[in-house]
Amino acid sequence: MSANYYDVTQWPVGDAAEDIGEVLNSIIADIKSRQKATDEHDGGKPGAVIYVPPGDYRLRTQVLIDISFLRIEGAGHGFTSSSIRFNVPEEEWPDLHELWPGGSRILVDLPPGDDEAAGAAFRVARSGNPRISSVEFADFCIDGLHFTSDGTGLHPENTYVNGKTGIYVADANDSFRVNGMGFVYLEHALTVHNADALSVHDNFIAECGSCIELRGWGQASKITDNLIGAGPRGHSIYAEHHGGLLITANNVFPRGASSVRLNGVTRSSVTNNRLHSFYPGMVVLEASSENLVGSNHFLRDHEPWSPFFGVDNGLDDDFGLLTVSGSDNSVIGNHFSAIVDADRVRPAGAAPVIIRLKAGGRNYVATNHAVSMNVQGKSSSSAFEAQVDALLSTGTAKHLPVTAVMVDPESKQNTVLDSGTEDQVHIDLATNAFRASPALPAQNAGG
Amino acid sequence: MSANYYDVTQWPVGDAAEDIGEVLNSIIADIKSRQKATDEHDGGKPGAVIYVPPGDYRLRTQVLIDISFLRIEGAGHGFTSSSIRFNVPEEEWPDLHELWPGGSRILVDLPPGDDEAAGAAFRVARSGNPRISSVEFADFCIDGLHFTSDGTGLHPENTYVNGKTGIYVADANDSFRVNGMGFVYLEHALTVHNADALSVHDNFIAECGSCIELRGWGQASKITDNLIGAGPRGHSIYAEHHGGLLITANNVFPRGASSVRLNGVTRSSVTNNRLHSFYPGMVVLEASSENLVGSNHFLRDHEPWSPFFGVDNGLDDDFGLLTVSGSDNSVIGNHFSAIVDADRVRPAGAAPVIIRLKAGGRNYVATNHAVSMNVQGKSSSSAFEAQVDALLSTGTAKHLPVTAVMVDPESKQNTVLDSGTEDQVHIDLATNAFRASPALPAQNAGG
Amino acid sequence: MSANYYDVTQWPVGDAAEDIGEVLNSIIADIKSRQKATDEHDGGKPGAVIYVPPGDYRLRTQVLIDISFLRIEGAGHGFTSSSIRFNVPEEEWPDLHELWPGGSRILVDLPPGDDEAAGAAFRVARSGNPRISSVEFADFCIDGLHFTSDGTGLHPENTYVNGKTGIYVADANDSFRVNGMGFVYLEHALTVHNADALSVHDNFIAECGSCIELRGWGQASKITDNLIGAGPRGHSIYAEHHGGLLITANNVFPRGASSVRLNGVTRSSVTNNRLHSFYPGMVVLEASSENLVGSNHFLRDHEPWSPFFGVDNGLDDDFGLLTVSGSDNSVIGNHFSAIVDADRVRPAGAAPVIIRLKAGGRNYVATNHAVSMNVQGKSSSSAFEAQVDALLSTGTAKHLPVTAVMVDPESKQNTVLDSGTEDQVHIDLATNAFRASPALPAQNAGG
Repeated sequence: MSANYYDVTQWPVGDAAEDIGEVLNSIIADIKSRQKATDEHDGGKPGAVIYVPPGDYRLRTQVLIDISFLRIEGAGHGFTSSSIRFNVPEEEWPDLHELWPGGSRILVDLPPGDDEAAGAAFRVARSGNPRISSVEFADFCIDGLHFTSDGTGLHPENTYVNGKTGIYVADANDSFRVNGMGFVYLEHALTVHNADALSVHDNFIAECGSCIELRGWGQASKITDNLIGAGPRGHSIYAEHHGGLLITANNVFPRGASSVRLNGVTRSSVTNNRLHSFYPGMVVLEASSENLVGSNHFLRDHEPWSPFFGVDNGLDDDFGLLTVSGSDNSVIGNHFSAIVDADRVRPAGAAPVIIRLKAGGRNYVATNHAVSMNVQGKSSSSAFEAQVDALLSTGTAKHLPVTAVMVDPESKQNTVLDSGTEDQVHIDLATNAFRASPALPAQNAGG
Repeated sequence: MSANYYDVTQWPVGDAAEDIGEVLNSIIADIKSRQKATDEHDGGKPGAVIYVPPGDYRLRTQVLIDISFLRIEGAGHGFTSSSIRFNVPEEEWPDLHELWPGGSRILVDLPPGDDEAAGAAFRVARSGNPRISSVEFADFCIDGLHFTSDGTGLHPENTYVNGKTGIYVADANDSFRVNGMGFVYLEHALTVHNADALSVHDNFIAECGSCIELRGWGQASKITDNLIGAGPRGHSIYAEHHGGLLITANNVFPRGASSVRLNGVTRSSVTNNRLHSFYPGMVVLEASSENLVGSNHFLRDHEPWSPFFGVDNGLDDDFGLLTVSGSDNSVIGNHFSAIVDADRVRPAGAAPVIIRLKAGGRNYVATNHAVSMNVQGKSSSSAFEAQVDALLSTGTAKHLPVTAVMVDPESKQNTVLDSGTEDQVHIDLATNAFRASPALPAQNAGG
Repeated sequence: MSANYYDVTQWPVGDAAEDIGEVLNSIIADIKSRQKATDEHDGGKPGAVIYVPPGDYRLRTQVLIDISFLRIEGAGHGFTSSSIRFNVPEEEWPDLHELWPGGSRILVDLPPGDDEAAGAAFRVARSGNPRISSVEFADFCIDGLHFTSDGTGLHPENTYVNGKTGIYVADANDSFRVNGMGFVYLEHALTVHNADALSVHDNFIAECGSCIELRGWGQASKITDNLIGAGPRGHSIYAEHHGGLLITANNVFPRGASSVRLNGVTRSSVTNNRLHSFYPGMVVLEASSENLVGSNHFLRDHEPWSPFFGVDNGLDDDFGLLTVSGSDNSVIGNHFSAIVDADRVRPAGAAPVIIRLKAGGRNYVATNHAVSMNVQGKSSSSAFEAQVDALLSTGTAKHLPVTAVMVDPESKQNTVLDSGTEDQVHIDLATNAFRASPALPAQNAGG
């Protein structure tokens, strides 16, 4: 094999099964010792690929990445539901085919750190110029193993808390890629500061406290075609101070506090995603302007799985499934299904809000469709059967009145078109433009 | 190489060229014999990757997969059009550069089976708990070699019938991946029962009877960014009893009976696809509710290639290009082109229907654009030249009157907005809400 | 390793570091010499994979590909910004961590050619039947090294001119794939003639004169999920005479003359992209009909980076950000942000045009949202900081009057709905149908 190709199981320093962190750091040191010249024959620092074959690799030492053009690549995202497994009675564990995730699997076994960076399996950090570029993570699994008690009395394995982070990028970076990865049972899966042209594509990031967090600032990145689901105190997708971010074609499962939360994000797209949540506040735009939220499918229903029954994100039903603070955003062509037990609506008797414009102004809201049903939430001891049953039961439900669009007085000069009938939209016509969807004929007429 | 990495050409048991099925089963047996403990050092069953280098591999023995975290990976989807090749006169075959698909190519040579499962090259089956997880198929080709006579007199190689299935997943499963694969000349390419968080991404699945079939029930899966085209009696994408399915960014060619057929599917998205068909019934929702069909491009024209001239799916032109039975669906922002020979419309003299709401109610249909042309269908002996010519000829066509939206009496309480002029929409205003697109001025006015 | 797997660093002929072109041609000759029979055991020409490990590989000889089922695969797209590096003062170069792109990197060092084909690192050419199929380029970097003087006085490294092409496909082809590639500092990155079912997916194509060009004719292809940015005289995505093309989920950066330019393209989709440009003419449809432009985010602002300050594509602000010549197109649900310095508008005093229908007719334009701001353009010596700052500064800007839709007299029978208020749309009601967005109340009312 070429000098720039490494296999963690073949490396003479350390033992990948016992501490893949030591092995990876040793390999990175080797790359740096061999690639020293910045301008030798119009090149000199091409980086390398490190292959992690399928297997269980404990990580006791944090990996520090400070070179560009490094790809760490496995052969399997290896996801299986640890959440289901830990909620199976322990006496049944001997009957299970397997207990742990697999693939090219890194078992994060770091001592508890002081902060997210310290608790990260992979930390990417390099200052100076140019920004670190083209680091790629592909096709392996990062498993945090266990969650720990959070003091609430919740079963420790259900807390989504353990102080562990999968990948933590501390410094400004360019053209990074995260593809085909699996993340499971981490408090934070992927945290990237100051990203430019980042691609997070086709990953499986689930049963993590928070899944994808773009922090600091950034631009021109994409989060596309992922399967994602965070915990009730975290976010499936979070971004702050980003411009030109494209969030599309993701299938976001419950139970994150938000499916997508944007803070100070401008000129970005949340389009064409399938979003499912157990609470209001599915997509939240805070101080975020000139964004497009279009062609998404929103489903909000109740948690059906007994271990999490009663857990929620604390938001009332008038918060909105989509909540916008900011200006000049476009909300076009989305479908919303609110499948809610009327007896559990908070505040009691309120109509759940679908789209809420809280502050800012000049937003454009058109051709959105809100569907609402009053359904008695059922719980079940089987995670996926419960969810599938809940998802598929549309027939017998009764209509539940909702506020399709609520425009707060703090948000002005908005245009709301064809996104609810006169009765379903709360809007001040002195400060906003509005055209109601035509009312349906009374249901017994002609029926 | 690591213990969990296998190359089918290096395995001591069997001969991959003569029967890759025997080799793969032997490797799977080896993995199972080595990975027995379910909880050894917090792991124990990481699975493996099996590499299939480019080459021709006959498969005479069905592969049975009953372990999680197995990736079977090739280095090329190897598609070429067998359909074109088999319709080239046999005396010209010696002049062809190549006759068969390639890449990492598995030649399915199983004896005819009693059913789809028996005729499958790969059968995935495991009961018990947990569900089998993270099996991945990547970057290889499954070729059924030939179609066989179906008794209709059609050239046997054009029947799309041979009793062969590429991949058949029989039992409930989680987090499977099918990426970068090629499927060709199979009666069923990919059939998955009871899928959870399945990803079918970036594949080439064409010239198969049916391409992607999600059966049983399932949830939270994605079918994204594929090139797909089925035969006239099958479906390019079929799903039943699924919730939260995301079908997006696919380019679906003719000639499937449907591009997308959903049966009992709820809270799912068919968005942002390019769909092309030679018949009505392109997207069919049966007993399917709360789905979003948005931002898709629909093109229906006539079969231009002589070997299939006259073959169709039997549906009349009033069936609708998009047909909805079910409730609370959203149909927003789609483009429809119906390029039809007026003399071939069935029933004769009828106006072809673009969107049809057949049963159910409370659907929301807004800002869809129906374009219709009366074009004499031409046939050609060259498959792709004929298609390209047909696709590109827009200039000389004449307008053909269509029914942009037909709401059957069995479907009530629908809202139809800006999706056709008064003349183009058939709707009972006693039971539905309607706003017509404004009529165009008479064409000579100002023209 | 298998007979059909090659590693360029292990091949006995040539020296990959000095001329990978010679090595690749020698390997292709070897494949052809071994795979001669077109029909041996139902196969015979499966092709091969050629692996390019991370490293710097000079290419002095053009690679000619004339066999199907060939995959050339690296382990890193290796992008870094050469544009930023070459605009760093040379005395600071010794302090840079690295100067060049990396990954599996091919340094194009061909003598200047007479035309694009001659200057291509990879030329794919094969006539006869069938069309060459399933050639795949994956996960490596093609670097043109330097731009050269264009006679305008611009710094030579900023011209986007060097006569070099990354991949040039000359003949009709089927089922090609370009995945995970990096292209940098090439005059033309990827040029494909006569494509059928081409997939260009998840690549990084930036700092090239033109990025993706589909020429001749073609059908049923997809350009999806790429990060793309061309130079001011080229196009990020260009296609001509294509039908059924799906352009989706791309994040297109500045500074291409167009983000997407379609010429004679029909029945295609430009949906769900994030598009950013420094000039008008972002998406141009010329003689293109029955296309869907939907759910895209358009941002036009001014070049903020000093080295390119003042460079533009020559178009006036009344050209339109989206300009349509052609008929029966759908423009639905797009967001447009025009962030323009009023003092720099051309012609002076004109209102910038967002959507312009220039010729043709029967187009359908609905629920588009135009946002416009008057912002003093700032320049900065740091490329990404300048861009991020510009992207994120929405708060203090003032509204700028724009023409949201301009319908030229040459374009007739169009329908324009909810895409601008009465004041913002220029349309002849004698030849078109129009419904204005409701006007907003005067801003002091209730505010």
